[in-house]
Amino acid sequence: MCEKKAEEAVSLEVHQRILSRNDETARHNREHFDRLGTIAVNLMGSPGSGKTALLEATARRGNRRVAALAGDLETDRDAQRLAAAGIPSLPITTGSACHLDAGMVHRALHDLPLEGIRLLAIENVGNLVCPAVYDLGQHASVVALSVTEGEDKPLKYPVMFRTADLVVITKVDLLPHLDVDVRAIRNNLARVMPRPRAIEVSSRTGEGIDQWMQWLDELCEAATAPLQEARA
Amino acid sequence: MCEKKAEEAVSLEVHQRILSRNDETARHNREHFDRLGTIAVNLMGSPGSGKTALLEATARRGNRRVAALAGDLETDRDAQRLAAAGIPSLPITTGSACHLDAGMVHRALHDLPLEGIRLLAIENVGNLVCPAVYDLGQHASVVALSVTEGEDKPLKYPVMFRTADLVVITKVDLLPHLDVDVRAIRNNLARVMPRPRAIEVSSRTGEGIDQWMQWLDELCEAATAPLQEARA
Repeated sequence: MCEKKAEEAVSLEVHQRILSRNDETARHNREHFDRLGTIAVNLMGSPGSGKTALLEATARRGNRRVAALAGDLETDRDAQRLAAAGIPSLPITTGSACHLDAGMVHRALHDLPLEGIRLLAIENVGNLVCPAVYDLGQHASVVALSVTEGEDKPLKYPVMFRTADLVVITKVDLLPHLDVDVRAIRNNLARVMPRPRAIEVSSRTGEGIDQWMQWLDELCEAATAPLQEARA
Repeated sequence: MCEKKAEEAVSLEVHQRILSRNDETARHNREHFDRLGTIAVNLMGSPGSGKTALLEATARRGNRRVAALAGDLETDRDAQRLAAAGIPSLPITTGSACHLDAGMVHRALHDLPLEGIRLLAIENVGNLVCPAVYDLGQHASVVALSVTEGEDKPLKYPVMFRTADLVVITKVDLLPHLDVDVRAIRNNLARVMPRPRAIEVSSRTGEGIDQWMQWLDELCEAATAPLQEARA
């Protein structure tokens, strides 16, 4: 039992050192983004929550100077889908890792030129737990939550939703076929998010994409203001 | 850089020691199940993939002497839903942990009497990555994969599907409303599962639940045969 306790203590210490080193690299990434005037968004959510589809819908609005990094354990399918939609994209394949970390993003940035890019979407590994803990250097954290996942996910996975700046409730075109009340999702979000903010979208029908684009524009403006002040 | 490499080596070593200790506890759990003639199933899948609904549908068939452990970061909602469906259940709340481990199951078993229980369903934390790595002492691993998650999840999360004895393709009643071909899901499963086995179900309409019950019966028979031999 004592041996186990000692092991847990070592494990915790190693984990904290890894997180602290991750934060250092994340700061470095953020400085890189700020220097180039690029706003980075960490897009998280369960597998199949519609993260790639949301970015495809974003691309269809055109003229946004968007680039993307697409994280997955295996395959470069998402990066290919995004490239086909007109978004310069690179895959990050993590092997068995359940989340992106700042170092993976840092290494990928060597191959993704950000000059002239206004918005960098970092699509994380599909996972409603682990990605929340690793800062990538983003300016905002967005969680895609599909209505098909049910009403109670915010309560069951609070760590993810507590750190989200915005929750995009996706696939609302499926609501007529589900026993899911979007108001219950919103109520549950309000119980865990310090500043609840949610947008309902269907990437398929385009519903709500206007609001998503507007949120992105506001984010870019808010994030750029202090940069311009610093440069003045 | 060298410091980082050393840190990664320590991290890997600690991780391997944790896994090796987990395997030891899993063996202990399995012996406990075998002594009582209980068959344990580790039920995994993304958040909202329909794990609890599948167990509710199982309960509706009655007379199966089923009990359950329900893992979640927070809340005992799933355990409550299962208890309401007539399945004796205990919650395991993991806090921030993204998966169950054998020790959590071991501790919960102290409070869940298994005498007379034929099937113990261990509903894991909703996560298509981490739970695959932790043996809980189960006799079989089942992955619930909702058709709403899209066709490519087996290729993108191969670690989970490689170790699955059965994949239950859930929510097939939604297929008419999705751009998803269930044959593509099956083809992708065949590319990663050593012995592909999948059943299509809708817990809502009851479609495919017969096949699921039959698979459970076969599992119980197959798992009991060597036990009876050992006792003879």
